[in-house]
Amino acid sequence: MLEELKQKVYEANMLLPKYGLVTFTWGNVSAIDRETGYFVIKPSGVDYEIMKPEDMVVMDLEGNRVEGRYKPSSDTPTHLELYKAFPEIGGIVHTHSSYATSWAQTGRSIPCYGTTHADYFYGEIPCVRCLTKEEINSAYEENTGHLIVSEFKRMKKDVMAVPAVLCKNHGPFSWGKDAKEAVHNAVVLEEVAKMAYRTELIHPQVAPAPQELQDKHYFRKHGANAYYGQN
Amino acid sequence: MLEELKQKVYEANMLLPKYGLVTFTWGNVSAIDRETGYFVIKPSGVDYEIMKPEDMVVMDLEGNRVEGRYKPSSDTPTHLELYKAFPEIGGIVHTHSSYATSWAQTGRSIPCYGTTHADYFYGEIPCVRCLTKEEINSAYEENTGHLIVSEFKRMKKDVMAVPAVLCKNHGPFSWGKDAKEAVHNAVVLEEVAKMAYRTELIHPQVAPAPQELQDKHYFRKHGANAYYGQN
Amino acid sequence: MLEELKQKVYEANMLLPKYGLVTFTWGNVSAIDRETGYFVIKPSGVDYEIMKPEDMVVMDLEGNRVEGRYKPSSDTPTHLELYKAFPEIGGIVHTHSSYATSWAQTGRSIPCYGTTHADYFYGEIPCVRCLTKEEINSAYEENTGHLIVSEFKRMKKDVMAVPAVLCKNHGPFSWGKDAKEAVHNAVVLEEVAKMAYRTELIHPQVAPAPQELQDKHYFRKHGANAYYGQN
Amino acid sequence: MLEELKQKVYEANMLLPKYGLVTFTWGNVSAIDRETGYFVIKPSGVDYEIMKPEDMVVMDLEGNRVEGRYKPSSDTPTHLELYKAFPEIGGIVHTHSSYATSWAQTGRSIPCYGTTHADYFYGEIPCVRCLTKEEINSAYEENTGHLIVSEFKRMKKDVMAVPAVLCKNHGPFSWGKDAKEAVHNAVVLEEVAKMAYRTELIHPQVAPAPQELQDKHYFRKHGANAYYGQN
Repeated sequence: MLEELKQKVYEANMLLPKYGLVTFTWGNVSAIDRETGYFVIKPSGVDYEIMKPEDMVVMDLEGNRVEGRYKPSSDTPTHLELYKAFPEIGGIVHTHSSYATSWAQTGRSIPCYGTTHADYFYGEIPCVRCLTKEEINSAYEENTGHLIVSEFKRMKKDVMAVPAVLCKNHGPFSWGKDAKEAVHNAVVLEEVAKMAYRTELIHPQVAPAPQELQDKHYFRKHGANAYYGQN
Repeated sequence: MLEELKQKVYEANMLLPKYGLVTFTWGNVSAIDRETGYFVIKPSGVDYEIMKPEDMVVMDLEGNRVEGRYKPSSDTPTHLELYKAFPEIGGIVHTHSSYATSWAQTGRSIPCYGTTHADYFYGEIPCVRCLTKEEINSAYEENTGHLIVSEFKRMKKDVMAVPAVLCKNHGPFSWGKDAKEAVHNAVVLEEVAKMAYRTELIHPQVAPAPQELQDKHYFRKHGANAYYGQN
Repeated sequence: MLEELKQKVYEANMLLPKYGLVTFTWGNVSAIDRETGYFVIKPSGVDYEIMKPEDMVVMDLEGNRVEGRYKPSSDTPTHLELYKAFPEIGGIVHTHSSYATSWAQTGRSIPCYGTTHADYFYGEIPCVRCLTKEEINSAYEENTGHLIVSEFKRMKKDVMAVPAVLCKNHGPFSWGKDAKEAVHNAVVLEEVAKMAYRTELIHPQVAPAPQELQDKHYFRKHGANAYYGQN
Repeated sequence: MLEELKQKVYEANMLLPKYGLVTFTWGNVSAIDRETGYFVIKPSGVDYEIMKPEDMVVMDLEGNRVEGRYKPSSDTPTHLELYKAFPEIGGIVHTHSSYATSWAQTGRSIPCYGTTHADYFYGEIPCVRCLTKEEINSAYEENTGHLIVSEFKRMKKDVMAVPAVLCKNHGPFSWGKDAKEAVHNAVVLEEVAKMAYRTELIHPQVAPAPQELQDKHYFRKHGANAYYGQN
């Protein structure tokens, strides 16, 4: 079932150690097949070194395991809520990548300090609040998804124009039109988080990049007037 | 004698350069066989590049070398005191890994700033004081062990829930149920120390993660109600 | 056409990932043949892993594509302006290398704190202002080139004695007598940017290196009285 | 002539890129044969990737090239002065390693914050002043050597107990009983410089390690009562 998607999700998971985004098993990638409404996700706590495509777990959007001998990632309910709320999202990544997680631990959103950021993320990368004690103790991972969804809706942010979020005291989620693009955005997020950190240490009073420069770079790569790349 | 344990201790020692935790010979791993009461430890000052399983040294808990042509690690008396005081401990690691050692050099405990920390360490990772001049000049390595033991008992910390400590102006020790888990915890400690450092530089007034979030993540992976992984 | 130059530009582009200066496709190298007035540049948004010498694009100094099936790098008009204004320049590099870009994001020039800097760059490495809204919205990449040219002329800086610039909120450009030297200078720039960052964090009130030391090191390697190396 | 020593100096030079201490050709190692009074040093500005043992240059202590088709390292007069003043020194290394050079650029000595430092360096690693304009313009590299020698003598420091120095706005020199030990000390210096940097950023008011702890670790490895390692 969904063998091609399992292969792609497997390969996307294997990119996480390749790009230095995970230590041990601290990360997971999923992707959804919008026709069947099933999504494929990494099994929980399985080593990257021994993981195989057939170990991927198939889930439906009610949270039932449709196929797979392993339990899915413990973060599965968060992925599920994002897929349900945002039909544009085709793939999701969660990591504890070092710089993005350090920002998440402070509770601060990452300001847009330059064109590297603006090429991929339109405006700051938001950090959402911690869950309340009640939210944590009832359905922690599901409530993490609810919070991301409600915060993006409240802030009127387009999830495809801001394809990542930080969860306070926890770490980042990123996404894209498929698993590979979601990992790509996770790599960019880490790089942007690293440069924002260094930027503030070099110049603590630094201001974000001018809005017109952010607009220029974002729309040079996205939307009807894009002219970056070969398309 | 204890050939299997020697092999495991050897392999665990070889993980230290693999994970970037040691420069030259600055680290050592041991593990204990609770049936015989013997523990196996890396020889002192032998290069990782030429070290072999049969070079491991077998010690008893009175500090006698039971087998081995090399002298044991100079930190052996510290390992010994931890094994004597805490029967749950099966393996111990000492390194000078860069971020954890930098924290140790400041004398500060590492606050719990997020779930990466909380997944492995319940509460802050304590930094114990320097030894006094008298403690240093009588039996330095043994007194290091005594101090760790007495501080964990004074603070009523469960060594398996806080499987690492920093020794002021020196560096970290970590442990686990066996040598491999002890190294695993040493890797996590270094990663947590790195992110705590960056967290404080991004936001100097940052507060620790809420207690309910620390509880959630720790007990999601440990104890009767754990649901992370495949068990 | 210009097969040898295409090969050199290809090889210089491949040095960028080798030296850790680029993530994904975030960089480009070009070189000019002054006889024909044509320059060769990396295609836009093509992966380094699949790029081949014949994918390089040949451009003239009016901005016309002379040969090549791909669109040239989106930064081509910036390269072009630099080639037109400075006949000494034979190769140009643009990257988003992490430390240099972090300095660019602050808008600060990099002071000369030591001989590593002085061996390659005479005086500070300047950071030019952001483009105005009008400059951004008319011909962004060309205006970036105009600004670098006019600022170097205004500051009376010799482009061969200061072979790099930072563009505020964007990133660095570097150059040299050919593509390989331009990449060499990009590597040095990143190293110098990294050490200047750490220098200021160790000692926030640090002053630049004395002028006589800067002179000594720069002229030990450059000009009529140079005595470094085998020439 | 001195083929064995040339091989050793070659191998020690090749350790510099292995340990990440040099970019391009920014480093050099030498070693002396005290019987003949000749020393062997890396040629100036030759790439590590193509360098061979027979490219090493043989010098006498008057600064004459005794053998070798290349010019010796431009830092040769500094090495020479150290060999002349300190008969205990058998090998010398100069690098621009990143953290040690960053400290040198601030003009600050590296305080002893812990046992990693104390295991190799007794007390702080001194940073000597810049040369004066006159010293720079007469015989720069030789005067660098004179300054290190006179400062060590003035501070009554034993060069074998403090086997490294920082030159303000320039970078480090380290040494040892032979070329290999000199490189070993260069690696330790960089690691110690890195941890001292992070230590001060974690806790700006940090104090050096207590003297009794510095004594314990230094004399655990050096002198008549050493007990670290297999000897």
